[in-house]
Amino acid sequence: MYNYNLTGKNKYYTLYSLIREDILRGKIKGGERLPSKRVFAAELGVSVVTVQLAYDQLLAEGYIRSKERSGFFAESVAEGLNKDRSAPVKPECEPAEEKFKLDLVHGNTPPNMFPFSVWARLIRAVLADCGEHLLERVPCDGDKQLKRAISAYLYRSRGIDVDPRYVVVGAGAEHLYGVIVQLLGRDKIYAVENPGYGKISFTYALNGARCLPVNVTEQGIDISVLEQSQAAIAHVSPSHQFPTGVVMPVSARSRLISWAKNSSGYIVEDDYDSEFRLTGKPLQCMCGLCPERVIYMNTFSKSLAPSMRMGYMVLPPELYERFLKIFSSSANFVPLFEQKALARMLDGGYFERHLNRLRNYYRAVHAALLKRLAALPERCEVADTGSGLHLIAKFPDAKSDGQIKLLAAARGIRLKCLSDYLLAPMAGVDGCAVINYSALTPNALSEI
Amino acid sequence: MYNYNLTGKNKYYTLYSLIREDILRGKIKGGERLPSKRVFAAELGVSVVTVQLAYDQLLAEGYIRSKERSGFFAESVAEGLNKDRSAPVKPECEPAEEKFKLDLVHGNTPPNMFPFSVWARLIRAVLADCGEHLLERVPCDGDKQLKRAISAYLYRSRGIDVDPRYVVVGAGAEHLYGVIVQLLGRDKIYAVENPGYGKISFTYALNGARCLPVNVTEQGIDISVLEQSQAAIAHVSPSHQFPTGVVMPVSARSRLISWAKNSSGYIVEDDYDSEFRLTGKPLQCMCGLCPERVIYMNTFSKSLAPSMRMGYMVLPPELYERFLKIFSSSANFVPLFEQKALARMLDGGYFERHLNRLRNYYRAVHAALLKRLAALPERCEVADTGSGLHLIAKFPDAKSDGQIKLLAAARGIRLKCLSDYLLAPMAGVDGCAVINYSALTPNALSEI
Repeated sequence: MYNYNLTGKNKYYTLYSLIREDILRGKIKGGERLPSKRVFAAELGVSVVTVQLAYDQLLAEGYIRSKERSGFFAESVAEGLNKDRSAPVKPECEPAEEKFKLDLVHGNTPPNMFPFSVWARLIRAVLADCGEHLLERVPCDGDKQLKRAISAYLYRSRGIDVDPRYVVVGAGAEHLYGVIVQLLGRDKIYAVENPGYGKISFTYALNGARCLPVNVTEQGIDISVLEQSQAAIAHVSPSHQFPTGVVMPVSARSRLISWAKNSSGYIVEDDYDSEFRLTGKPLQCMCGLCPERVIYMNTFSKSLAPSMRMGYMVLPPELYERFLKIFSSSANFVPLFEQKALARMLDGGYFERHLNRLRNYYRAVHAALLKRLAALPERCEVADTGSGLHLIAKFPDAKSDGQIKLLAAARGIRLKCLSDYLLAPMAGVDGCAVINYSALTPNALSEI
Repeated sequence: MYNYNLTGKNKYYTLYSLIREDILRGKIKGGERLPSKRVFAAELGVSVVTVQLAYDQLLAEGYIRSKERSGFFAESVAEGLNKDRSAPVKPECEPAEEKFKLDLVHGNTPPNMFPFSVWARLIRAVLADCGEHLLERVPCDGDKQLKRAISAYLYRSRGIDVDPRYVVVGAGAEHLYGVIVQLLGRDKIYAVENPGYGKISFTYALNGARCLPVNVTEQGIDISVLEQSQAAIAHVSPSHQFPTGVVMPVSARSRLISWAKNSSGYIVEDDYDSEFRLTGKPLQCMCGLCPERVIYMNTFSKSLAPSMRMGYMVLPPELYERFLKIFSSSANFVPLFEQKALARMLDGGYFERHLNRLRNYYRAVHAALLKRLAALPERCEVADTGSGLHLIAKFPDAKSDGQIKLLAAARGIRLKCLSDYLLAPMAGVDGCAVINYSALTPNALSEI
């Protein structure tokens, strides 16, 4: 019956995706009993742990339920939330072991762009100036000096006036997603964008919360679906949605804020790449519009270096008080050293100078990329908002997304399509390549 | 009815403790409905969030359950697990704002003991040698060099032969407790020692797992209770239990291992202060006896400095594979910088030299403390195993634990009693002061 073919690295994720797809498409009916973990593992030729992990994820996301001593059963998936059932959900497989010349899926800022000598100088200065104070315990919400520096930076760069008190420093976005679940509760439903950045729903689920994928329209997350749902939290990236690139217009932002106010819900505003708006100014943050209902979040992993596990969020005052109540006796996860050095980098203007350099660099990459796409033999339409480090290239004549990826692979290019980022089925996403150009260099483009 | 008096800083914890005590003592009957959050908050003169947090904690620990649209109800607490119901559970209140001359509750290694110049030199050397490699993403389980250094250190200091592959580096103990819940599941029951270090059960509960407090006998955690329970994980500190100071004898260790083998359970061996055995050699780790059922865990926050959020665990091979499956696409939380510097500190022998200095220092503190206790006008019996940085001083003539703390406060000393660390009621713990001497100096003792 379950004729699944599990290959590649991430077997449990593939299994999870295949079962989910069959539940969503009605191939596995609501109430149907799934095979026991041991039987299933033997049948598929994988370990019991693989099946266990897939079931755990399905349980966390509400696709199946467990009954004591009788096993796992498929849920009847609520009608109406995602109307289109025909489009299959493609499992987000890890690539085979081939080496690609060009990776347009992952990608980090080129390391030579990082102002290493400045950073090293700041580290040495912190070491000399702070001395043994560096050994002191850091308060749970982070070093005061860094909190102030982030607040001042947000004012300069995003025009929002944030009391430094409400800034909470954490060890990167994944850590902060977990803190949000601990703050708001794992009994709540977390609406996430579909298609979206899989790490968000994965991390919420890993922390025991239930996620509801809500389709992204041309105006961002579909607020009418949100309004009819039981979701208490909406995790959105209004300044530049990943992977669609949609920028949420002001009308949708105010409707989303009304939803949060009326339902006493919270909006997590994930501003993960707003630094990389290449043309014009970014739209005003939602957090500036309604500080009592919006948790603003950003990270330095993308703009500085992937090894910098530092991010922050700005909490509404009420949530900040709750944070203190829960974590007052805990120390912050980020070493004081890194916090002090980053504070100096922000206060000294080094970070903004670094961003300016990066933006200039990416403007050149972006222009070369557009030129290269225009010169392709295939018909190609580029959807580009001049923001962030990715864009969508639509190939209307492609037979399937698989064909797009195979053609790219034949040229030594690794890429994914919009359909690879689906958390639930959705129509109209076929033929769209997601081009993440953060690790691209102008030279690399001329070689292919 | 609920005539609770909530004062001090940590109101929600006090409220949680008071309700739990009343449930355990039968003052609140199983099935009894608790007041709604709003009504209760108004009655007690606290915020709704305070009541919410207290209820959340009680829910997570299984003392109450919630029924949709009808509210919160007390559970009938299982008989027999903790036989003694008469001893009240004292809420672990935060101290009032008074200033104490001497803190025997919290306490960090004196900062001047930290080899700061060595550390600063290593940091500068790492900066110069590794350069831009420091910007690279750290694999989810930590830097290879640090993993190897920890494995070699464990062999030298604890005589255990650990494959470096199975070492996982994390941002301190609290972070690793959370990872354990993500690895083993929040549907499991986690047995914790009673009395015990409150942060352990607190962090498990915060991560959505249920904790079962199991009394500590003279042989460590009561394994007969464990054997009759539904617990799947036992979190223990066999080398030096906090706060009782009990060292688990070998017979109990092997019985505990049999329990884990027979029930397919796991033991978390929290070796948090084994470095501070002042006389003789520590007992062999449980992890060396049964690597497939024991998760060994330790931290550097205690031995180096409280700002060093670095800990590690050694996973059984099966769990390590599961860890990789879950976290393969995540980066480690600890900056590469700190990991490289610590690896050099371990490999260069600096860490062990530092520990030797610390142990010599604490031997002097320990001797001065015993002398001071012997000179007290009150009758005092010291239970001391020559291990760790705390001991138990019993005052048989004290009228109550409150009297002990008041008398200490009158001399400018802040301390707690065994009963303050109870997670569930237990007889025979009265009159015992827990003296944490990690922040003590020989001079401070002569002043009081």
